[in-house]
Amino acid sequence: MKAAVIGATGYGGAELIRLLQQHPSFTLHSFHSSSKEGESITASYPHLETVSGMELEAIDSEKIARDADVVFTATPSGVSSELVPELVNAGSRVIDLSGDFRLKDTKQYEQWYNKKAPDEAILENAVYGLTEWLEEDITEAQLISNPGCYPTAALLGLAPLLKQNIADPESIIIDAKTGVSGAGKKATPVTHFTEMNDNLKIYKVFAHQHTPEIEQEMARLNPEAGAVTFSTHLVPMTRGIMTTMYAQAPDGMTAKELTDLYQESYKDSYFVRVREEGTYPSTKEVYGSNFCDLSVTLDERTNRIMIVSVIDNLVKGASGQAVQNMNRMFGIDEKAGLAFAPVYP
Amino acid sequence: MKAAVIGATGYGGAELIRLLQQHPSFTLHSFHSSSKEGESITASYPHLETVSGMELEAIDSEKIARDADVVFTATPSGVSSELVPELVNAGSRVIDLSGDFRLKDTKQYEQWYNKKAPDEAILENAVYGLTEWLEEDITEAQLISNPGCYPTAALLGLAPLLKQNIADPESIIIDAKTGVSGAGKKATPVTHFTEMNDNLKIYKVFAHQHTPEIEQEMARLNPEAGAVTFSTHLVPMTRGIMTTMYAQAPDGMTAKELTDLYQESYKDSYFVRVREEGTYPSTKEVYGSNFCDLSVTLDERTNRIMIVSVIDNLVKGASGQAVQNMNRMFGIDEKAGLAFAPVYP
Amino acid sequence: MKAAVIGATGYGGAELIRLLQQHPSFTLHSFHSSSKEGESITASYPHLETVSGMELEAIDSEKIARDADVVFTATPSGVSSELVPELVNAGSRVIDLSGDFRLKDTKQYEQWYNKKAPDEAILENAVYGLTEWLEEDITEAQLISNPGCYPTAALLGLAPLLKQNIADPESIIIDAKTGVSGAGKKATPVTHFTEMNDNLKIYKVFAHQHTPEIEQEMARLNPEAGAVTFSTHLVPMTRGIMTTMYAQAPDGMTAKELTDLYQESYKDSYFVRVREEGTYPSTKEVYGSNFCDLSVTLDERTNRIMIVSVIDNLVKGASGQAVQNMNRMFGIDEKAGLAFAPVYP
Amino acid sequence: MKAAVIGATGYGGAELIRLLQQHPSFTLHSFHSSSKEGESITASYPHLETVSGMELEAIDSEKIARDADVVFTATPSGVSSELVPELVNAGSRVIDLSGDFRLKDTKQYEQWYNKKAPDEAILENAVYGLTEWLEEDITEAQLISNPGCYPTAALLGLAPLLKQNIADPESIIIDAKTGVSGAGKKATPVTHFTEMNDNLKIYKVFAHQHTPEIEQEMARLNPEAGAVTFSTHLVPMTRGIMTTMYAQAPDGMTAKELTDLYQESYKDSYFVRVREEGTYPSTKEVYGSNFCDLSVTLDERTNRIMIVSVIDNLVKGASGQAVQNMNRMFGIDEKAGLAFAPVYP
Repeated sequence: MKAAVIGATGYGGAELIRLLQQHPSFTLHSFHSSSKEGESITASYPHLETVSGMELEAIDSEKIARDADVVFTATPSGVSSELVPELVNAGSRVIDLSGDFRLKDTKQYEQWYNKKAPDEAILENAVYGLTEWLEEDITEAQLISNPGCYPTAALLGLAPLLKQNIADPESIIIDAKTGVSGAGKKATPVTHFTEMNDNLKIYKVFAHQHTPEIEQEMARLNPEAGAVTFSTHLVPMTRGIMTTMYAQAPDGMTAKELTDLYQESYKDSYFVRVREEGTYPSTKEVYGSNFCDLSVTLDERTNRIMIVSVIDNLVKGASGQAVQNMNRMFGIDEKAGLAFAPVYP
Repeated sequence: MKAAVIGATGYGGAELIRLLQQHPSFTLHSFHSSSKEGESITASYPHLETVSGMELEAIDSEKIARDADVVFTATPSGVSSELVPELVNAGSRVIDLSGDFRLKDTKQYEQWYNKKAPDEAILENAVYGLTEWLEEDITEAQLISNPGCYPTAALLGLAPLLKQNIADPESIIIDAKTGVSGAGKKATPVTHFTEMNDNLKIYKVFAHQHTPEIEQEMARLNPEAGAVTFSTHLVPMTRGIMTTMYAQAPDGMTAKELTDLYQESYKDSYFVRVREEGTYPSTKEVYGSNFCDLSVTLDERTNRIMIVSVIDNLVKGASGQAVQNMNRMFGIDEKAGLAFAPVYP
Repeated sequence: MKAAVIGATGYGGAELIRLLQQHPSFTLHSFHSSSKEGESITASYPHLETVSGMELEAIDSEKIARDADVVFTATPSGVSSELVPELVNAGSRVIDLSGDFRLKDTKQYEQWYNKKAPDEAILENAVYGLTEWLEEDITEAQLISNPGCYPTAALLGLAPLLKQNIADPESIIIDAKTGVSGAGKKATPVTHFTEMNDNLKIYKVFAHQHTPEIEQEMARLNPEAGAVTFSTHLVPMTRGIMTTMYAQAPDGMTAKELTDLYQESYKDSYFVRVREEGTYPSTKEVYGSNFCDLSVTLDERTNRIMIVSVIDNLVKGASGQAVQNMNRMFGIDEKAGLAFAPVYP
Repeated sequence: MKAAVIGATGYGGAELIRLLQQHPSFTLHSFHSSSKEGESITASYPHLETVSGMELEAIDSEKIARDADVVFTATPSGVSSELVPELVNAGSRVIDLSGDFRLKDTKQYEQWYNKKAPDEAILENAVYGLTEWLEEDITEAQLISNPGCYPTAALLGLAPLLKQNIADPESIIIDAKTGVSGAGKKATPVTHFTEMNDNLKIYKVFAHQHTPEIEQEMARLNPEAGAVTFSTHLVPMTRGIMTTMYAQAPDGMTAKELTDLYQESYKDSYFVRVREEGTYPSTKEVYGSNFCDLSVTLDERTNRIMIVSVIDNLVKGASGQAVQNMNRMFGIDEKAGLAFAPVYP
């Protein structure tokens, strides 16, 4: 089967090329870029030399829909909202990596993204693709909205708690830390090496656009969930997200019970690895891979639950989960092309 | 006046040498080490070449007490508990950088440090030296117990809140992140470059020995304070601590009121810089300096207060605050030798 | 076919597991460790959880020879020299990643490694496995000595020059820079994060044990080659080697001619990518992959040739080249299991 | 005495503020910026909060000349060439940190900088301020051209060799490595954190504008010196330069003789520390300080001399040396305000 990637020159696009290049059932059919038509992908990414000699093509929705079995739109917010409907209307099956089709409430979208919301008819049919918690069969779905990196890490960590209604959702605090690749390929003063190296920053304080996405999905998992405190830090590393999450525990719960619950919840999820009680993941332990590693414990002195989750923001937090969703859409093993080990150290 | 440093070959000792070397009123009189007697300090620290050609001397409490006006013990926990009483009994004025004289409750010490507690008579007279919140004149004090790095960052951030009894102390969560120098000079598997570079780790989960120290001092600031949730992360950087702290706000409070309160609290504290509302410090902005930079804000959607504090763990979190305490002990300007700018970038 | 890995808990061993796990023709049959028998590999490497649940086994040469088609010895120098002969005598086909079977001159070995040289009969039959420059068919070879990381980067860069006898070998200088994983998994003061982060060190000055290996192989490529100046630097990064090499050019040569020669030399070598004239590789562009990227140019003002080569020291510089050699030994496509893209960024 | 800084918002300017702030004889009188007039310096550099509350002022050469005893122009190349003559003509004593007044040959300047050369009359009177090798008394000099960062590291390392005519200048190769702050404060794709972290790059190959500066000064030290091979690498660290330099030795020389010669050459130079034979500096050992640490040795197998020099590119390589030159200009101790220890670790 054939995949097309639009927006191939961002980090999400480059990572899709790496993943699709080793996929057993899909081939990379074409790359597309609005700004670099005719250029080789190696002009942007010399590391892809010999891996792929393909040229970037223009974005022609009709042609793409005709030629490719699936299309990944790794385009920025505000671009996908225009482009995806064209592709959908032309008959493509689309996996969108922008945030444009995640928020069902268009007012929320316009408030947090400060852009015009996409067409509601298309939006309505977009499936939010947190793969492990999909409520529906997506083998017929035409549009998957791929989750954000922070929401993926946070929701995989919170889902068992919310589903089982163990903790008061109002007590939840998400203290999130990300590597700098989450900010994208574009150079900015904040992500200048000299400013970021050997430094730790807090940013977009209570203004991160992933906040309503997390809340929307928390509420889907537990209708009592409302607003959540979510803070975001930039750590001097390239890849990786860790979310450290706190919630008030009911009386009498133990760390062992919590760990058992989590291990049970994810026993059929290859990509979510729940650590043994008393051990905790570090971000490097999922580097370059599609895994989400999780620990849960209890601070007995304050009766607070703490959940720690780590992902590679560019893989499980973006392109890897997109491929996992593609596998589900086409009814093949969700591990296809993704069951490789992290790169460690 | 003359200062002696015991334990000169750890990072705390080396940093004391840097700071005392530029102090206007004190000279570095002697360095002492139990294991490296007779060696030049430059064998451990080539960067001190020409800055100091002094040799490390044995630890002779009587002689040190006779020769030096003040002694810094930058010795490990368990060593200070034996050494400091000797120095005190010999008449020295001592500033201890280990954790041995911080916890007033010897049971707590023995539980968290897993070592024998120091002599209670000496312990009783030790003054906990969080300089900005000293309740007493220390110009006559003989023993200052210098605060830990995490407690310094956390308590400077929490103190105005606790003093004014603004938030329920039970609601407080401290999510702390440190650079790796906090773990000391000794090479370990956890702090091996290859394991720590491009990585983010959570460690000593709910078992960090600074926990009871933070609680003891929180209770001094506000008697209602009890146990606190305190988590600790290792960030791939050399220096710096950031604590991100959360507390439930009373109804009707605003971010501006909180910022005003903090600016008022610290208006006479040169080394605590409260940022303007809506701006936040990063760790690099205090690198190499004795500053603690602070922001406070309100997450209006959840009515949670968030406080962010940053310090250089080896300066305000250790040797810088020790010199600041020395200045206070000797009745000189507390800024003496410390009023230099951070090294940025 | 079945592969065994001895010394699975070092970085070379862990990387072999990652690579073999995705190999189309070989399966990971067993891991062996002298010190951790009975432990799960995940005790040393939590990132391998679910990737492999295998236990570390004792080292029983007879059993290994019986059960596995090929054995990788990722054991330290001085251990391989004892172990490999046992395996060879038991009939195993062995790929050795230590330096024990690289130097044909046992006096050189004993001088640079300060260890007892291996048995000469075994040594004589060991094939030096710089895959792209193998002079012989190795489909029948029983023992491959896998090259060192620095020699791989240096020799791939120098080989066309030496083979064509373009530059005076005496004029060659190799200025090499490595990431810290080259120093292995064991924590040491030199590789302590705090000492290495934001730092650049020169080390083992004119005493690196890879020096005679480079010279031996340079002489094989060009009999006029003798001693070479080779310096080694530690760079604050995890993976990657760059060698910057200088040699006096004959009169009248151009950068274009040099580039053409290199491109011609490597036109059939999938894993060596010669860059276009005027462009240069960075280490990250081969991160996690088996590629060696190369540039060659001329400093016209001094008539010096400069060659720049980069590899991932743990892949092409160790485990990746070992798998490439295994593919050659078994007569399968040398790209099998290795033709994936670098992890970038 | 009073100092003015023009171009205060670049890294050179910010570092001058840090250094002047602790100078015993000079005060920071005013900061100037063409683009940020009226803004507080803390808008660009929050770390300077409370250290300096001054506002950036417009650049009025007449007024600056009237008010300040010395002016530092930390302005970009092409700006200084216009601005410095104005200041000089208005009577200021100027220390220029741009490259505009370093090359005496205006054709070279125009070729390497691709900008219009400055007025020759002014250029003629500019003294090249490599402080340790100044040939003249500068207490009356009106214009000092402060050396570039690479030339400082390279020339301090080469000067004794060149002066004593020990090695054939044609045999010299300079392999230089820099931290990223050398590229300035402006964010660029090359210096984007994600592209530079865990990466090593070679850049501006044989096209670095410091090449002719090094050659000009090498020729001043030894008239036989001509073109030199000089390569430049970007290392993932903030501060620091290491130059590794090679030269052919005359027969019969020893490492000890070389070390003795270097120690003798610099015995009166506080800021140049020649290491003992067999030990080598790392960049961190001069971090934040004005020191240049040096080692020299001999590769006996190839009879090549190797010199290793390290500096902090923003201090000895820019603002620190500028202050050192200021001290010389005003006839005060050259160590004034600069004799502090490196920040280590």
